[in-house]
Parts: sequence; C-alpha cells; structure tokens
Amino acid sequence: MFLRILQANPKLKSIFGIPGDFQLALLEHLYSESIVSKDVKFIGLCNELNGAYTADGYARLIGGLSVLITTYGVGELSAINGIAGAFAEYSPVLHIVGTTSIKQQQVDDSQQVINHHHLIQNKNPLKQPNHDVYKHMVDSVCVIQESLDQDMAANVEKIDKVLTTIIKDLRPGYLFIPSDVSDFRVETKYLNHPLNLIENFRNTPMANQKLSMLTEMILSKLYKAKNPSVLVDTLITRFKHQDVLDEFVKKLPSNLVKLFTTNMGRNVNESLPNFVGCYYGVGTADRRIVDEIENNSDFLINLGYFNGETNNAGYSTDFSKVDDYVEIHPDYVLIDKQYHYTKSDEGRLFSIGDLVSNINEQIQSDKFVHKSVNNIKYKFEPTQLYTPSKTDAVYIPQKKIIDWMNSYLQPNDVLIVETCSFQFALPDLKLPPGVKVVSQNFYGSIGFAIPACLGATFAVNDMKSNRRILLMQGDGSAQMTIQDISTFIKYHQHLPNKPKIFVINNDGYTVERIIKGPTRSYNDILGTWNWSKLLQTMGDENCKYHKGIKLNNVQEFDDYFADEQEDDRLQVFDLITGKFDVPDRFSSLFISK
Amino acid sequence: MFLRILQANPKLKSIFGIPGDFQLALLEHLYSESIVSKDVKFIGLCNELNGAYTADGYARLIGGLSVLITTYGVGELSAINGIAGAFAEYSPVLHIVGTTSIKQQQVDDSQQVINHHHLIQNKNPLKQPNHDVYKHMVDSVCVIQESLDQDMAANVEKIDKVLTTIIKDLRPGYLFIPSDVSDFRVETKYLNHPLNLIENFRNTPMANQKLSMLTEMILSKLYKAKNPSVLVDTLITRFKHQDVLDEFVKKLPSNLVKLFTTNMGRNVNESLPNFVGCYYGVGTADRRIVDEIENNSDFLINLGYFNGETNNAGYSTDFSKVDDYVEIHPDYVLIDKQYHYTKSDEGRLFSIGDLVSNINEQIQSDKFVHKSVNNIKYKFEPTQLYTPSKTDAVYIPQKKIIDWMNSYLQPNDVLIVETCSFQFALPDLKLPPGVKVVSQNFYGSIGFAIPACLGATFAVNDMKSNRRILLMQGDGSAQMTIQDISTFIKYHQHLPNKPKIFVINNDGYTVERIIKGPTRSYNDILGTWNWSKLLQTMGDENCKYHKGIKLNNVQEFDDYFADEQEDDRLQVFDLITGKFDVPDRFSSLFISK
Repeated sequence: MFLRILQANPKLKSIFGIPGDFQLALLEHLYSESIVSKDVKFIGLCNELNGAYTADGYARLIGGLSVLITTYGVGELSAINGIAGAFAEYSPVLHIVGTTSIKQQQVDDSQQVINHHHLIQNKNPLKQPNHDVYKHMVDSVCVIQESLDQDMAANVEKIDKVLTTIIKDLRPGYLFIPSDVSDFRVETKYLNHPLNLIENFRNTPMANQKLSMLTEMILSKLYKAKNPSVLVDTLITRFKHQDVLDEFVKKLPSNLVKLFTTNMGRNVNESLPNFVGCYYGVGTADRRIVDEIENNSDFLINLGYFNGETNNAGYSTDFSKVDDYVEIHPDYVLIDKQYHYTKSDEGRLFSIGDLVSNINEQIQSDKFVHKSVNNIKYKFEPTQLYTPSKTDAVYIPQKKIIDWMNSYLQPNDVLIVETCSFQFALPDLKLPPGVKVVSQNFYGSIGFAIPACLGATFAVNDMKSNRRILLMQGDGSAQMTIQDISTFIKYHQHLPNKPKIFVINNDGYTVERIIKGPTRSYNDILGTWNWSKLLQTMGDENCKYHKGIKLNNVQEFDDYFADEQEDDRLQVFDLITGKFDVPDRFSSLFISK
Repeated sequence: MFLRILQANPKLKSIFGIPGDFQLALLEHLYSESIVSKDVKFIGLCNELNGAYTADGYARLIGGLSVLITTYGVGELSAINGIAGAFAEYSPVLHIVGTTSIKQQQVDDSQQVINHHHLIQNKNPLKQPNHDVYKHMVDSVCVIQESLDQDMAANVEKIDKVLTTIIKDLRPGYLFIPSDVSDFRVETKYLNHPLNLIENFRNTPMANQKLSMLTEMILSKLYKAKNPSVLVDTLITRFKHQDVLDEFVKKLPSNLVKLFTTNMGRNVNESLPNFVGCYYGVGTADRRIVDEIENNSDFLINLGYFNGETNNAGYSTDFSKVDDYVEIHPDYVLIDKQYHYTKSDEGRLFSIGDLVSNINEQIQSDKFVHKSVNNIKYKFEPTQLYTPSKTDAVYIPQKKIIDWMNSYLQPNDVLIVETCSFQFALPDLKLPPGVKVVSQNFYGSIGFAIPACLGATFAVNDMKSNRRILLMQGDGSAQMTIQDISTFIKYHQHLPNKPKIFVINNDGYTVERIIKGPTRSYNDILGTWNWSKLLQTMGDENCKYHKGIKLNNVQEFDDYFADEQEDDRLQVFDLITGKFDVPDRFSSLFISK
C-alpha cells in the first residue's frame, strides 16, 4: 500500500503518525527495504491533532497528498478537527486509521458482547458495539472513505479510489485498515498499472466541448475588454496549479490586464508591473485598490474563487459595478450570470488547471482589442505604519512588526501565519516573488500553525530546498499545540533547514479581547511562559539545535535585526507585544460589524 | 441557564472552557452577580481536548455533572475524543457549544452562499453550508443533544431534558447555543420548579413491582447461599452510589459473604475482613483470589457490572463454575439466566442505586441460612515484588515503585493513573480505605491523566477537601496534553491542595514496545524533555508554586522518600525508569494472547 501511495505522490518522504496497538503491524511495513530505500521515513508526533495539522502543512508545500496514521477511536477522533480544517482549506491529507480486526468485527448479538478498548459501547449494553461507529463521524469532513477487508482485489481498488479522489478533490480521505489486514500483500503487477490521476471525464466529447466553449467565451470577453482585471484567488494554488497560473499571468498583456489577489490567494508575483494589490473588501490596505477593481474594471475574472467570510472581509467585496464578471471555481464556471458545472457526483469534466492550461494554449496577444492602454492609476506599496511612541519601551507594536516584515521578507520565503491578530496584517504586506503564505484563514482553528510549520519544514527539507521558513505565532494559540515544537528537536537530523518562530507574546487571546471582554479572565492565558527558554526544558537543554531570543521592546527589536547573525538552529523569538495592540484592520473590521 | 446547571449540581464551582467568538456572549453570564456570589468560576484551559479530560476528571470527583464550554467546529471537534472517553467511562459531562447565530442559520440556497469561519463548506460549493454538520458527528458519543432557538419556553425544557438525561445516564450530553441566543432570559419562576432527577418510571406500579421482585429474588438467593460472593464492579460507583454500596457492604455478614472488586472497581474498603481481593481474570495478582471467586463461590452477585476487555483481562474471567450468578447493571439485572431490563428508551424504572437501597432496606441478617462459616481461605496481601538488581543504579524498576506505593498510599488518597504501563500494576496494590482511583482503563486514550488530574484537583479543592492527590503518569502520554500542567500554576490561588505528579520517564511508548516493535522508531518519543524543570519555563520560573524532583535510581528514590518533606507546592517527580521494564502482568497478558 505504501508503495502505491508513493506512486500517488512521488515527492512524499515523510509519513506522519502516532503509534497505537491497532496499527503497529501496519507501521512495520514502513521499515521494509522498498520503503526505506526511497528515503521515506515515519515521523512520530506528540499527539494526533498536531499530527493532522502537520500533515496539512506538509501537503500544502509538498505538491501532493500527505499521510497521517492514527489508531482506532482515541487517535482518529483527536485528529478530527485538524482533518476538518484540511477539508475546509482544500488540503489533501490521507488519514489512515488502524481499527479492530475483521475477526473482532465478525460478532453478532447472539454471542457474548465483547467490548474492546478504544471502542465505545453500544448504548444498549446487551448489544455488540458498532465497530464502524467512528467512520460515520468523518463523512462530512472527508471526500472519500474506504474500509479494507479480506478481499484483496477489492482492497487494491479501494486504495486507488481513495488516493485518486483525494488528489482530484484536494481534500482529506480516509482508509480504515483492520489490524489483521495490515499484512496483506498484493501482486506487484498491480504497481505496474499506473494510477489514473486525470479527471474522470477528461477528453470525453462532453468535456472537450465544454472546455472549448468556456475557453472561447472567456477569451472573447477578455479580448474585448477595455479595463480587464484578474483577481487571483486561492483555489487555483490549493489545487496545485501554480505553474499553470504563472503561465497564464505571463500571457496577459501587462499594459492592459490588472492583477489582484485575494487575502487568501497571495499567489501572484506582486512585483509585476500590472499587479495592483490584495483585494479584501473593506479590509483592503488602500481604498484605491478597491477603486481599481470595483470601479475601474469592465471585465473581471475571479480565478480560483474561494468563498469564505475571511477571504472577502465578511462579504464586503462588491463586483456589482463590474460589467462582466466571470468566476472560475474547480467545480464550476460562472459566466454571463450562468453556472456551468464542471463537476458532477461522478467526477470532473476537467480540472481548473485543465481550463487555464487550455486558455494558455489558445490565448493570442494580437487579439486584444485594447492593446496599449496604461490604465493602472494605483499600485500598492506598503506605507510606513509605525511611528515611535512612549509605549515602545514597554512592548513592540504590531505596526512595527509589519513594517519590519515588509523589509525582512525575501523571495521564496515560506511564511506561516497562525490564526491570531497578526493574521489581519497580511494585506499590509507586499510579498516578494515566490513567497508562499500558509495560513488557515478560513477554518481558523488556533493551534494550527506550529504543527503546520513543522509539516512545512519537513516538506521544504524533503525537497532539499533552502527556502527560509518564518512562522508568525500567537501565544494563546501556541499553548494549544506547543508539544510538537519539540519535534523539530526530535528530528533535527532530517531538518537542516529550520524555521524562525516569532511568538507574539501579548498575554492572552487578543483576538477575542478585541471582539468581547477585553479584560475578562476568560481571555487570559498563563502569560508567564518563557517562550525563549521553553525548548531548553523540552528536549534541547544546551541549545544545540535551537536558539531562544527574547525581545522586550522596540529598541531591542531594532538592535537585534540590525545585526542579525546567521544561525542554522531553530530560532524562537519571544516578541513582547501589547495586550490590546492589534493591526488596525482587525479592530476596524469588528467595529464596522 | 447557569443557575439551572447549579441546581442540577449544587457542588459545581468550576466551569471549564476555552473562549471563542461564537460563545463570548455566553461566557459573559458567568460574571453575573448571581453566579459569582456562588463562588462559581470560569477555568480556561489551554485546549479543548484537555478541557474535555479536565471536565471528565472533575465529574468523577465532584459527585455530579461537570461543564465544558467550547466554540463552534474548531473547539467542539477538538474535544470530541475526550467526550467519547467520558461516554465510554460513564462520566457526566455537559458540553456546551456556541454556534453560528439563528440569523446566520436562516439562509437557503436561493440566497448567496455564505461561508462562516469555523464552519466547513457544503460539498456542493453552490449550496449553503450545513450549520448542523457538527451536531451529527456527536450523536454516538453522547446520550442527548439539544439546540436552543428563539422559543424560550422550549429552550427551558430542552435545558432541563439535557441536564436530567446526563445525570440519569451518567454520560455526556450537548447543548448547542447559537451566538444570538446566549442572552436569552427566562422567568425566575422557572428556577422555583425543581429539576426532576429521579428516574422516569420510579414509583410507578410497574417499577415497584419489578423492584420488589428483583429484591426478593436476589435476597432469597443470598440468604440460602453457602459460599456467597459479591464482586463489586465500577458502575455502581460511576453512577454515584458509593454511599449505597458502602451501606450494602456493611449489611452483608462479614463472616459469610466474600467481597471482591474488579480492576476498574476498587470501590470497596479493602481492609474489611471479608474482602478477598481484586479479581481480574488471568491478570489477578494471586491465583488464590481467582480460586476464591471462580471455584469457591456458589452464589455471586456482580454488582455494577462494567463489560470491557480491560476490566476482565481480555474476557478471561470465568463464572461457569458458580452455581448461581446475578449481574446487576444500571440498565438490567441478569438473574436465573434471564435479563430483566430496568431501562427502556423512555427511561429507567429505577436506578441501580434504588435497587441496592431497596435491598439494604429489606435485608435481614437473621435470614442468612449459613451464618458463621469462615469460608475465606485466602485474602490478598501485597507481596514484596522488588528485589535489588544491578540495574538499580541505572533506573528505578516499576516493581520498586509498586512496593513503595503500597506503603505510601494513605486512606482517602485520590490516585490518578494514566493509560500507561503502570496501569497494569493496579491489581498489585492494596488500597487503604477511601482511596479513589481515577483512570480511563477502558477507553484508554493516552494523555487523559494530566488534565483529568487537573479536574480532580479542582473538584477536591472546590469541596475544600485535603485529600492527597497522586498522579502516576507516562512520559509519552504526558507529552500528548502537557500544556495544561501549567494550568495548575495559572489557577494556583484556587488550588491550595496541589497534586504530586510522578512521571514514569522511560523514553517512549513502552506499552507499545511490549506489544510490537520494542526498538522501532515509531515507539520513540523525544526522551530529553526535562520533566522536573518543565514548569520553570511553562510559567513558574522561580518554583513559587511547584517543585521539580528528578530521581535517577533506586538509591535516590529511597533516600528521597525516607525523608520526604511536606510541601504545599505542586510536585513533579521525574522517575527514571527502564525502557522495557513494565509490571509483570502486562507482559504476561500480551504473551498469553
């Protein structure tokens, strides 16, 4: 099975999990010569929720599905929130769960009631437990689930179906493996039969017809438009079509077509001459960006549309003044106010990447009617947000951090942002080319980011990349999942490239303080954690693999980064920030509600 | 609502939770004069899974239901595994979840699709999300769930129904509260109407008839028996009938009726002259205990039967040689090989406590036919397990710890035992009177114990008790939920009575090592955590509220406890133990399989 998974994602080198007695036999297969020789390794996390977040983070970077292995009940249920997050955010995680054995499952109510550990009892104590009880709980947070059994030919088909569905829908899927099926063998010839990863109806006459029609409609509108704009949203990237997107952007006449991204998109080279800015409704960094897209576009392609209130600032985006609006989603295209489904229950006609590729192939620069109109009145440049204040001696304002980050970011950095007050600073950043932002903006489960950063770090290292990895982390959220910060130490040998973790230490759930109860005890955390020394008691006493840095105020912050030294170790920054100090956007969004 | 909850459990002083924007308005009500004046406080945990475990631990000690408050999706789902554990182990936790508002829920597919943060999207992107999606996921891990709405009269009924069902079934229930319903007010007269906490059919003719019949049948068998035994199992205690049980035990002629407990029971005074021992099938500490119950009993009452493989050592208990076997479960009585249900879908005829109370009332000592037979051939006394060895300088053997614990335990101690190798030592312990064991033996979710200990500690302090609280904790399991060890520091002012936490530091998942892959990397944890110093970086740098003690070998262990000093602080012991050293019972159970 693992070999098949590696066919589904040849880049996969790390498999995440937490051992349990229902899947130990399965884990043994990860130590077989055929797996080890491919440099694939098992990475053990501290708990299952963190495991799910880690797998999510890995999947976002590695360019294919990731794998999480947990045990029956106690393990899988702990992971469920992380899997729901991967579902909401289109992250392709394969969750493998070891279950009771088929033998154990083959009992009926005429026999003695056998209650196995980890398996909740039947509500009627004189009936057998339902061995499938947990499977029903995950239906809505995954796109597919299959349970293996003794029919090996069917198992092979199930595995393939799960793998292909996860990859096509870019959302989690489950494989439930009874403990006595772990050792099943399939004939090797099965591995010679390649996985069918293209969309079910690709190249059918119906698909080809629709593809041609939509391409033609979109291009004809684009060619004719006087003020065309493309708003690049996140689903094109989540669906792993960044290359196709880059090609598309390149083919658009830069003196005609204005480019924007959404808050969750940030997947366009922001240094391009025709890139205007990040459009986030009322949360947009500059009103002139809003003007450019809402009032100065006659044609707009919303490419890779992600519909969510954290992507459109509470549904404050407004395309009503755009003459002609096209919305391209992986499952449909909205054009001329009509929805064209590209996906049915049986599968997709073609992927969003297929459509954009087809556009790329067809597009001809000489067909644009309005060729040389220089129609961009404003392009976003970050403004200096921070001004010195008396409080600078007491804490580092977030405005200071935003300004610093605008100069600190380098091309191709991986920037991970926790669901925390700093997340609301994203539209203030101008990202250098190739910067990859990882954040769970929509689902918004705090605690996501440390494990996701761990997963991203494994991915970056597995790809032998030297991209910098930066994590902006809240303190309350850090406490949620802190144990797996020590996993950077546990696997230091696999992670020569380690992240810099910036903990926004503001003594509580500042996001909630802004919404309600600023001084209420429910928004307090234990604020005396020593973030810069934490790893000294969590596995790296002598700072061999990490370095802790506490910066108490603006002066210390400036001094440190004025003369920052290269260091290969994991770096944990304890940034003392203000208890009620948040990016302006955040407070204004909530006051406006 | 909170006032009603306090009526359901007047002893409740701590309400656990993690804030989120969907329930902040609800949390505000905890700061109202009527709540604060009752010394009820909100206790904020680091994460929701830990919150569920904490509430479970609190419920086990406080003698009534406990309360956990989480937020929509991201919060509630993180808690689900802890709630499933409370379900499996009969712990009455009320889980209150703040959801999207009724206004937000009142949309249909004819309107724009609105995707709220924390709420997973509909699989069809052009349909509204299902606001009830998470509710369906918890059906099997709770006994009741209700969603409040704008009908205030109905809300009142729903709240009462949830409270009474949780209390009667001693299992978790859910209240889903839309964010715009949090502020609803009910007339105070409602609070004058007492909650109906007695069983639905109690005192109906049918119930009275069955109660009389069963009492008579049981007593008549008991009176006639020559070698009667009572095996006291855990459900009588989980259902909060310890007092009734104690009374029952007192009424049994001690020179005739032999007493036993199960592995999960441990609720009988083990110093009584007729207490034989803990019966745990093939895992029983002494074969002679097995003989006494299996071979030397002609009549056996299994009182408070909990059917689970961790309670009967993999179904190795055997009552086939007992002439007459009676099984008393909260939902039925098995007598003369016939099941008499005492519970239907509509409710119970009477509780297990009602039945035993009735027996207590009816029982007459002069009716026992065999009055003065001294029939106990063996009574359990712990044997010295530890013998000195060369490895004593390298680590502390678990046998040493078991021996020590047999002398260290005091009456009324609260002993919390994590799902870890030491859990298998429980049958080797002879418990002083009143010792309360808290463990999640059956569900077995590792990571349970630190938060459960936190909950138990709040309960003990809320009851102003000075019982000692001892926690035996595995290291791998500690890493699962470690953050909330700092919550002892956060709320130190509420917790004058703090626990002693003994971390069995054996460098990995030793339980799994015994089962499979003793040296496999999947069973490794980062073994360099410094348990005795951890809290110095997690909030108590100067050891004001805690003390860390590292004991490296037998000599240090003996020296420390030979001269242990009183200390009011939380104590964290780092006990260096052997990587493969476990209680004998554990390895033999797995070899026998």
